[in-house]
Amino acid sequence: MSIERQLKMTEPVSLHTLQLPAQLKELNPAQCTALCSEIRELLIQTVTQTGGHLASNLGVVELTLALHRNFQSPDDRIVWDVGHQTYVHKLLTGRLDRFSTLRQENGIAGFPKPAESPHDSFVTGYSGTAVSAACGMADAMRISGSPHYAVAVVGDGAATGGMFYEGLNNGGKSRNNLIVILNDNNCAISKNVGAVAKYLSSIRNKTEYVRTKWAVERALGHTPVIGKPIAGVLKNTKDTIRKNVIKNATMFDQMGFVYLGPVDGHDIEALDEVLEVAKSYHRPVLVHINTIKGKGYAPAEQNPGEYHGIPKIDLMSKHPEVSADECYSTVFGQELAKLAAKDKRICAVTAAMKYGTGLQFFSAMHRDRFFDVGIAEEHAVTFCAGLASMGMTPVFAVYSTFLQRAYDQLLHDIAIAGYHVVLGIDRAGIVGEDGETHQGIFDIAMLTTIPKIKIYSPATYEELRLCMHQALYQDHGLVCVRYPRGADHVQFERKYVNTTYVHLPADNILLITYGRLTSAVYEARAALKTQQISCGMLKLNTVFPIPEEAVKIAMQYQHVVFLEEGYAEGGIAEKFAALLLEKEFQGSYHCRAIHDFVRHAPVPRCLDFIGLSAEEITAFVTEVIHDNAL
Amino acid sequence: MSIERQLKMTEPVSLHTLQLPAQLKELNPAQCTALCSEIRELLIQTVTQTGGHLASNLGVVELTLALHRNFQSPDDRIVWDVGHQTYVHKLLTGRLDRFSTLRQENGIAGFPKPAESPHDSFVTGYSGTAVSAACGMADAMRISGSPHYAVAVVGDGAATGGMFYEGLNNGGKSRNNLIVILNDNNCAISKNVGAVAKYLSSIRNKTEYVRTKWAVERALGHTPVIGKPIAGVLKNTKDTIRKNVIKNATMFDQMGFVYLGPVDGHDIEALDEVLEVAKSYHRPVLVHINTIKGKGYAPAEQNPGEYHGIPKIDLMSKHPEVSADECYSTVFGQELAKLAAKDKRICAVTAAMKYGTGLQFFSAMHRDRFFDVGIAEEHAVTFCAGLASMGMTPVFAVYSTFLQRAYDQLLHDIAIAGYHVVLGIDRAGIVGEDGETHQGIFDIAMLTTIPKIKIYSPATYEELRLCMHQALYQDHGLVCVRYPRGADHVQFERKYVNTTYVHLPADNILLITYGRLTSAVYEARAALKTQQISCGMLKLNTVFPIPEEAVKIAMQYQHVVFLEEGYAEGGIAEKFAALLLEKEFQGSYHCRAIHDFVRHAPVPRCLDFIGLSAEEITAFVTEVIHDNAL
Repeated sequence: MSIERQLKMTEPVSLHTLQLPAQLKELNPAQCTALCSEIRELLIQTVTQTGGHLASNLGVVELTLALHRNFQSPDDRIVWDVGHQTYVHKLLTGRLDRFSTLRQENGIAGFPKPAESPHDSFVTGYSGTAVSAACGMADAMRISGSPHYAVAVVGDGAATGGMFYEGLNNGGKSRNNLIVILNDNNCAISKNVGAVAKYLSSIRNKTEYVRTKWAVERALGHTPVIGKPIAGVLKNTKDTIRKNVIKNATMFDQMGFVYLGPVDGHDIEALDEVLEVAKSYHRPVLVHINTIKGKGYAPAEQNPGEYHGIPKIDLMSKHPEVSADECYSTVFGQELAKLAAKDKRICAVTAAMKYGTGLQFFSAMHRDRFFDVGIAEEHAVTFCAGLASMGMTPVFAVYSTFLQRAYDQLLHDIAIAGYHVVLGIDRAGIVGEDGETHQGIFDIAMLTTIPKIKIYSPATYEELRLCMHQALYQDHGLVCVRYPRGADHVQFERKYVNTTYVHLPADNILLITYGRLTSAVYEARAALKTQQISCGMLKLNTVFPIPEEAVKIAMQYQHVVFLEEGYAEGGIAEKFAALLLEKEFQGSYHCRAIHDFVRHAPVPRCLDFIGLSAEEITAFVTEVIHDNAL
Repeated sequence: MSIERQLKMTEPVSLHTLQLPAQLKELNPAQCTALCSEIRELLIQTVTQTGGHLASNLGVVELTLALHRNFQSPDDRIVWDVGHQTYVHKLLTGRLDRFSTLRQENGIAGFPKPAESPHDSFVTGYSGTAVSAACGMADAMRISGSPHYAVAVVGDGAATGGMFYEGLNNGGKSRNNLIVILNDNNCAISKNVGAVAKYLSSIRNKTEYVRTKWAVERALGHTPVIGKPIAGVLKNTKDTIRKNVIKNATMFDQMGFVYLGPVDGHDIEALDEVLEVAKSYHRPVLVHINTIKGKGYAPAEQNPGEYHGIPKIDLMSKHPEVSADECYSTVFGQELAKLAAKDKRICAVTAAMKYGTGLQFFSAMHRDRFFDVGIAEEHAVTFCAGLASMGMTPVFAVYSTFLQRAYDQLLHDIAIAGYHVVLGIDRAGIVGEDGETHQGIFDIAMLTTIPKIKIYSPATYEELRLCMHQALYQDHGLVCVRYPRGADHVQFERKYVNTTYVHLPADNILLITYGRLTSAVYEARAALKTQQISCGMLKLNTVFPIPEEAVKIAMQYQHVVFLEEGYAEGGIAEKFAALLLEKEFQGSYHCRAIHDFVRHAPVPRCLDFIGLSAEEITAFVTEVIHDNAL
């Protein structure tokens, strides 16, 4: 920052009076600090109400400010990886007034959404994609002759995933205006996730922060920093800075990036300086900054590594990645830990979601057979195949949406050889507030394209345990047990517990469903009964392969209505229809499933607006009956 | 090797007289050299007949010998990445007699196949998976107390893919008997694939090979090398070797591996020594060896980098990754290059398959808009999204089976935002000799689970060009054009050319198909006509979303028979059935599609044994008609 610009404003500043993000550039350090405090207060106040990712956003307050001081968004493209750390960015780019609607229906999203603002340059719901996207942007800038920058902000968690390296490998060979900010908070979602984390930690522990202030001020003075003319002037500065850079941080150098760092990510002046220098290279630069997750909020700061495991703190209990005390995840995790005590072949694998998937119980009891591989689902699946090839029984617990990363590995590395691997697919179905990228609505469509796979979709805790036993001890090959986010509130006749299907008969109309939706369908069936409409109900527990007996049952009905909390194309309803047609079913067939990405809102609201709440199902069946003049 | 063991055999040796692999340990260096020559002759002689991967196998003759001299397969697990370099391994592990059947129907596979031999420890049809699988094996060994080794042999091409790093990141934090051999032949399938390639090249160019012979001989003497007792003895040796190791090869060190190398991969003695040392560490070791792809065969050696582009050499024309002079790939590549001359927004992306996908034409004409990202489909797709977000029109040309790697990126990074990206999906459908891992039979089932996607499946060159235009200039969002391996030999009424569907009407029976299968169905239709069975034909060009008009046409028929060269579950036939049932179709519906992985054999034979040759289709329709008593 030039001295003139810093001196322009001396009065107190506030988010509400500044023109954002433009006027950020004019603030002096004291004003920046004041603004950061205001932002932190607003974050804590809002997120305790709305739920969401608090700690990661508290950690990037200064960084976000510095980015908007030093880059011209949206002409310079800032890509956030993962996008849950964009609350501050949203505050600074036109969404202050609506910030209280964060993650609420029709409110602002918890992740970057280009439709929401031109400053949200890319949809990043999941880790590891930012460098690749920024590479594309930087090449597009080069081709079109744009002088702007593509900036990827990447957490250290993402450095455990392979896409980060694919991105660096390709970015590093270019001469583009590509800047990668490695936001290292020593706090990948679960700890001890690999050699890279260890390496970053060694940099942190062995070195002093790079202090560049004096060098930059001397060299830059009032000179504009973009463009070739000043390249010579900066040469000395850069050399000085490079000498201060730790000597063993060569891994990123070796991949073709100028490495700058580590820099204190809570020191606005240091950030300003390192970003100015990074810009001056006009080639790929990796800026390594250290931040404290939860900075400014004592309970989170005190538990930087394992705070995900402390659901007792009120604030933290609203964190979307922490499972409640009793929920499908904990039932799964506790049951698996219990089974593994008797069966030494069982191994548990997670991709950085130990607490989210309830595997903390397993990890505590069976440390030698517990594996947290980092945010690396591809590796997790092939690693499971390797374990299985040696006679172990690996169980990979993973969120439905994140399993999409490993489709090829499931197909090639497990299914072809036919290894016995069990997938615990958590957050299957609508997950709610995290929106499009997190809804678990594609797993069935995706998984059923894999030969010989078996898929259970239990609705209750009791069924979940039963399906786990079946998957571990009765089935072979690739077996999936999928269950929703949250707790079992299923209303159903619980005496009917098995692993294939449950049939509640009637004469004419059959409602078919599976999983959590059982409850809504059961409720709709009761409501329809009060309207003198008697419906049978077929609840599938084994959803794939579809039990032959289930098709035979459906053949006996005149009207079949399928209700599916999953994507329609390739879903069970579609398959069921094809089986009915092959058997020359002569009745009417109707289906309600999901036909597009589902935007963020609480789960019940999502189910409502996609037509899968009890009320909507009741109305749909009534309409079907009316149309068919029953 | 101890001197005693080396001296045991002095007579001339031959593949045919040795007990393999056991007696390999007893050979002296001269005998090894002789055996390598014999193996090379046999490789050249066989692969010129059978087709396959010659150069990569010529490059690993000494390495394979050394591995089987120094490890106890199958108790020690050797995982080959990619598996196409296992011909020598197969020769040495019980498949010498059947070697002439390589890649032939009912013959030995061109890739490792556990069902074929216990020495084939893992199915590796595609790059990047070996370290992850070996990690799983090594952990299983640790848990079960086995003293054996897991050895991953990885090509430098695989080092451009993210899974390699995920594997290293996880392997590097263990203390397992995990050895990674980085087989660096400076020859990833296409060149210039990134910063890592550049880094490896810098190691190669700057350093002498590590000469360890004297150090190892002195330290080892006649001592057995496995087990803790000798750890102390080896300490000095290891220190000596480490001092010889180049100073800047720290990237792998930083990831937790002991780095040893580079070693001449054609020097059996050097390989013996480095492998002995690697084993002695009892912790993760990366051995970097340099080999020459095509070693011992002049035409291949002379063109180590770009030989894929020389289809005129007889031998090379049988290489499965080289596209013929005229085939769908070259038509695609030439057309795209032509279009890009008029449209500066078009960018072409490949994942290390420049020649295979016909993009050499584009790369020659539009170097600044051509991107070879290495074997990194995940990056490729997200990179395309980044380009598209800036207004470019990226076209990613990729083999059907390899696109599976990027399912999540297609869904999250392209489809949610709705970017206009075109996929040229090559090798769609049966590919033949490469077998299970390479058949392009899952793309439609996988891709149709992505909201708003559009998929064309042209059958002829003319249709391919037409669909490309449509995809680039009429469509929005994610659009796919899929086409088969090889040349257009389609027999059909070529005057019917459009991008939706073609209908040849009849009264009663309708055959529905798409893509290359058009030809067989057309032929079957003619054969049925000679039997007085008149069939209509509906050829889909737009396969998804299924054109409404196509469903209406089918509704007019009494009997609908769907023929699909693709996986049944989630395929077009299944979707078509569901649409018919929703419209209360009252006729009979029949389908023949693919229900399992398809083993290796020439394409026509594969189509025959999965029931999709013209003869089989004729028989199927005849049977259907008989059963329905038409």
